[in-house]
Amino acid sequence: MRARVHVTLKPGVLDPQGKAIAHALEALGFDGVADVRQGKYIEIDLKDGPGSDGSAGGAEARVSEMCEKLLANTVIENYRVEIEA
Amino acid sequence: MRARVHVTLKPGVLDPQGKAIAHALEALGFDGVADVRQGKYIEIDLKDGPGSDGSAGGAEARVSEMCEKLLANTVIENYRVEIEA
Repeated sequence: MRARVHVTLKPGVLDPQGKAIAHALEALGFDGVADVRQGKYIEIDLKDGPGSDGSAGGAEARVSEMCEKLLANTVIENYRVEIEA
Repeated sequence: MRARVHVTLKPGVLDPQGKAIAHALEALGFDGVADVRQGKYIEIDLKDGPGSDGSAGGAEARVSEMCEKLLANTVIENYRVEIEA
């Protein structure tokens, strides 16, 4: 089972990395870039085992817990979990 | 118009950041993590203007060019572009 996690900065949080990309694109001659936000994309391959009931719902709960504890800084970041069978 | 770009390491390319996440999850007591790969997720807000014909296809071509020139290292990374009207 594979989980896809997107971790993005919350709206309103300053994103210097995104701003740097926007400026670099402008310097390269790409017009029409209004804003850029950069986040993280994490793919997690899960194997069945203790703590796993083999269901997508169970996997989603486990991965959400991983996000809360390690993958995302929930003060400034949002996360989104998708499970692929 | 908004473009969502995923930049991921090609299969077979070593991903130390993903390995570090996998080890950290294990240390936190999360069993059943077979593999972790980390990539980048970039949201680009495009405004209409010179070089834009307002179509999703045109936007996709422009963003693909951005990926080729700046956002992805195509030697070791793949990219995927999605356009949202």
